[in-house]
Amino acid sequence: MKNEIKIFSPATVANVSCGFDVLGFALDTVGDEMIIRKVPQKGIQITKINDQNLPLETNKNVAGVAALALLAETNIEFGFEIEINKKIKPGSGIGSSAASSAGAVWAINELLGSPFNTTDLVRFAMEGEKLASGEAHADNVAPAIFGGFTLIRSYNPLDIIKIPTPKDLIVTIIHPQIEIKTSEARKLLSQTVSLKNATKQWANVGGLISGLHTNDYDLIGRSLQDFVAEPVRSKLIPGFNKLKQTCLETGALGCGISGSGPSIFVLSKGEKKALEVSEAMKTVYNKVGIAYDLHVSKVNNKGIKILDTK
Amino acid sequence: MKNEIKIFSPATVANVSCGFDVLGFALDTVGDEMIIRKVPQKGIQITKINDQNLPLETNKNVAGVAALALLAETNIEFGFEIEINKKIKPGSGIGSSAASSAGAVWAINELLGSPFNTTDLVRFAMEGEKLASGEAHADNVAPAIFGGFTLIRSYNPLDIIKIPTPKDLIVTIIHPQIEIKTSEARKLLSQTVSLKNATKQWANVGGLISGLHTNDYDLIGRSLQDFVAEPVRSKLIPGFNKLKQTCLETGALGCGISGSGPSIFVLSKGEKKALEVSEAMKTVYNKVGIAYDLHVSKVNNKGIKILDTK
Repeated sequence: MKNEIKIFSPATVANVSCGFDVLGFALDTVGDEMIIRKVPQKGIQITKINDQNLPLETNKNVAGVAALALLAETNIEFGFEIEINKKIKPGSGIGSSAASSAGAVWAINELLGSPFNTTDLVRFAMEGEKLASGEAHADNVAPAIFGGFTLIRSYNPLDIIKIPTPKDLIVTIIHPQIEIKTSEARKLLSQTVSLKNATKQWANVGGLISGLHTNDYDLIGRSLQDFVAEPVRSKLIPGFNKLKQTCLETGALGCGISGSGPSIFVLSKGEKKALEVSEAMKTVYNKVGIAYDLHVSKVNNKGIKILDTK
Repeated sequence: MKNEIKIFSPATVANVSCGFDVLGFALDTVGDEMIIRKVPQKGIQITKINDQNLPLETNKNVAGVAALALLAETNIEFGFEIEINKKIKPGSGIGSSAASSAGAVWAINELLGSPFNTTDLVRFAMEGEKLASGEAHADNVAPAIFGGFTLIRSYNPLDIIKIPTPKDLIVTIIHPQIEIKTSEARKLLSQTVSLKNATKQWANVGGLISGLHTNDYDLIGRSLQDFVAEPVRSKLIPGFNKLKQTCLETGALGCGISGSGPSIFVLSKGEKKALEVSEAMKTVYNKVGIAYDLHVSKVNNKGIKILDTK
């Protein structure tokens, strides 16, 4: 059995316009690197993080809490050390805490010979999310662990459906360097939706899921509409409307807020179009006058990947 | 070119639990028969209906109004006669008016050499629905014309997506002989939905569409939940809860209100199970003491069918 594993744990986009709180997908070239090592000492130790703002104490660290949730369902007489090389900025809205939580439990399961299934792993990783945001949501940890697009059909019981990912679907992420707290973005949302808008929302969820199953890029694009969160949350992101308009005019399939922001995701068909869209996005955002990161990535159909084992 | 066509126009189930106002499917063995005949006289004449309660006046008949909407987009110098042999009881909640509207425009399009596409035909048939219920909805006429399961992703522009139908999906329809007016069933609905319930609803729409694409009967069953209409509308249908419980205990995939009722649809995997479920339904409903019709049918993947041409 392996003693040490080095993994890539992907950044993820939750919500995906119409799929508020239920849909997400994983990125291929943006993510954390983690080393998880079997050690004689029982329990979990976080031995290294490259971000001084994140706690090393197991009980205060999302990866630590998620890993402990897994260990609680085992009878093993040893433990694990975790090193985290954060490459996803906390607060970016592309699943920074989820990558750490998901990566930790996925790697430990791997080192234990895979006693747990992917839905179990999501359940453990959700404990990390609960620590991070107060809510044990799965919309980032599910795509990190399953890969591709995921649908959380139900929490009780936990029922996660992997949705096929058309191969030419390329995502551009722009991360404006502003802070939006998930809790504040949540407060903006009305706790009720008009039946009319709710109906439009589930019609679009149906269209998006169907388009993903049939590689119908146009249908995917037409379905990327959000009548619930985007109308209020987009106001927190300077330049959102202009950026979206430009992306669509340049031929992107669709554009929306990643999670609760501030990152924005844009889906395009093919790399050539994605790069063209990305250039147009830079032109718009350079005028907004807020610093930003920009990533172009395939949708990652595999989820967490092994980089090295010892 | 053909001069006369005899067609079968199917009964349809709208809403389909989670898919309130956007999903529907067509039945295979329940439907109206219609004869549409090319005649020298311009316009539309309804020459025969086997139901004395339905009007022969073109402008007051749903088939007549739908057919006129089609003719208005042609320049033809002749007209059509329509004979309707109603086999779907008006007010049953399985798309009686939709079958007549859809059948008329589908058959005329066929006799004209198919100048219009299926989405155009839905648009014309919706005019018949507008006459019937005051609202130009498409959730019955779309599956009648497209066949199988249909998703109305958007009304403006009209965007109808045909969803694949797993071949072992069998539907049982029970039609209790009580009257529920669509307008009254509508009034029961709150015009707002809690964000929590709306989110559950679109999660289930996503699950249902995915299950239909992958022949995942269990997922289809798990997704047949309605947090919006069924909780209030089921109160109008005596015995609904007991019937649903019995169907699920007998192994049906799911059960819900067809359209706005009073008919109830039950989906099962395979004919054997569907017949077993149907027997259990009869046992329950015989005790309720309301007369009923019961139909067992495959989902009709083709929609309207030609029975004869001259």
